Amino acid sequence: MDLISSRTNPKIKQARALRGRQSRQRNGLFLVEGIFQVGEAVAAAQAGRLALDSIFYAPELLKSEFALELVRGLRVEHGAASVPCYAVTRQVFESIADKENPQGILAVARPTHYDLGVLNPSNFSWGVALVSPQDPGNLGAILRSIDAVGASGLLLLDCSLDPYHPSAVRASMGALFWYPLVQASFAEFTSWVKERGYTVYGTSAHAPTDYRQVPPSDLPDRQSRSAHPYTKPMILLLGSERQGLTEEQASICHHILRMPMRGRVTSLNLAVAAGVMLYAMLEGGN
Amino acid sequence: MDLISSRTNPKIKQARALRGRQSRQRNGLFLVEGIFQVGEAVAAAQAGRLALDSIFYAPELLKSEFALELVRGLRVEHGAASVPCYAVTRQVFESIADKENPQGILAVARPTHYDLGVLNPSNFSWGVALVSPQDPGNLGAILRSIDAVGASGLLLLDCSLDPYHPSAVRASMGALFWYPLVQASFAEFTSWVKERGYTVYGTSAHAPTDYRQVPPSDLPDRQSRSAHPYTKPMILLLGSERQGLTEEQASICHHILRMPMRGRVTSLNLAVAAGVMLYAMLEGGN
Repeated sequence: MDLISSRTNPKIKQARALRGRQSRQRNGLFLVEGIFQVGEAVAAAQAGRLALDSIFYAPELLKSEFALELVRGLRVEHGAASVPCYAVTRQVFESIADKENPQGILAVARPTHYDLGVLNPSNFSWGVALVSPQDPGNLGAILRSIDAVGASGLLLLDCSLDPYHPSAVRASMGALFWYPLVQASFAEFTSWVKERGYTVYGTSAHAPTDYRQVPPSDLPDRQSRSAHPYTKPMILLLGSERQGLTEEQASICHHILRMPMRGRVTSLNLAVAAGVMLYAMLEGGN
Repeated sequence: MDLISSRTNPKIKQARALRGRQSRQRNGLFLVEGIFQVGEAVAAAQAGRLALDSIFYAPELLKSEFALELVRGLRVEHGAASVPCYAVTRQVFESIADKENPQGILAVARPTHYDLGVLNPSNFSWGVALVSPQDPGNLGAILRSIDAVGASGLLLLDCSLDPYHPSAVRASMGALFWYPLVQASFAEFTSWVKERGYTVYGTSAHAPTDYRQVPPSDLPDRQSRSAHPYTKPMILLLGSERQGLTEEQASICHHILRMPMRGRVTSLNLAVAAGVMLYAMLEGGN
């Protein structure tokens, strides 16, 4: 087996450069680290949700049978022009890896891009839209919650954050590979929800309506089945960590809901707020 | 006004050293940064929840009227042996501060320590216990949720994480200053819940009972008021980010509850799981 032992090998330099946002965006590639995450990326690639560009692994570090099996499988498929797998020395691997004590495997992956225009109530019945999120860890945690409740995906509005930041990838526990992640402007989103007939739910500390007591929808063709009937197709719209929804953003919501705040803080962590709302919508959804 | 302009001034060196865990633990002090957080620390100190050791501020950076008023107020009280406030140059301030673009104010604070033994159902009716949490951001976000639902505080079991890590302080949005934060061993916790009669709720992906369908308590003296009656005094027990509750930890729970997991992930982010459960307990609590 040939081991790449030079940190200046062009493939190694390219992979290492993906730690930086500019290189991720210029190349349309991002890094996936660790056994669990690479396993999810391979599964997502096999399901056609993601493209794998290459795999790097350090035999000296990689002890997991599951991971070695994964690499053997990809090597075999490689004959059929699948995913190149490169064995590298421990030192070379550590020069690419983010974490201390890396597990010895990482993938270079290419996300599938979705346009807002292709999403509609039949392929995206409910999901979350975040306006200008700031924290990649929150973004990843929200994708993880989206997967947990079986929602359809995540929309990022007026978003300057890179959703393929290593912290977002890590926090999503693989959900980033499986769900549509769409970037759009708030104006495009506003037109889209109107045209496609989505009900938009927002949150505010000052709203009169408790999130457990959403008034029944007045759409004529449905029966109220619950005391808090969230109505699909639906979008949970959340503002940024710093300021929540602005007045303009709140103005496009069909319902602005209040989560009880019994203490001194006036809001929850963004990922926590999304999680509590998503579970309420899962239970109360029609 | 005297400005401290030397980074090697002993007070500055002591404050800067608090960025490190060893110094925080040796001195029993921690750093609080930014206008909002320092405002909350001052309010908590006035309410006797926290002791303030000192305040550092950079007049060149600090533009907020609220913050300047805060400093003026503390300076006046200083005559009565209250909190020393030190004006420092921008360069000195930046040598202590964690963040880029600091707001120009930070406090050195001394937490109040609580022993598990002083907590009981009358002063701690419900709260969260975390076994070996790994991520200070999760810890802070959970304290923020504890405040939001009006729970009593946080127990850290077999915890090697420093809860006064700057990321935990920041994520708590001040809640860290207001609520009892108790460190104990899992064995001590086990005795305590038994002696004091707490109901312990844990979570597992494989539990038969849905978290919305907790069976009514069989305590003779209460009426079921809800389909999911969480019973105070109560503790939400959550395992570590990596492995959740072990079998031994789960064995002390009165109820092990399942949160629906509709997708590929088998768990939520720890702070998200705590948030969803706390809101369920708030709604369903008796």
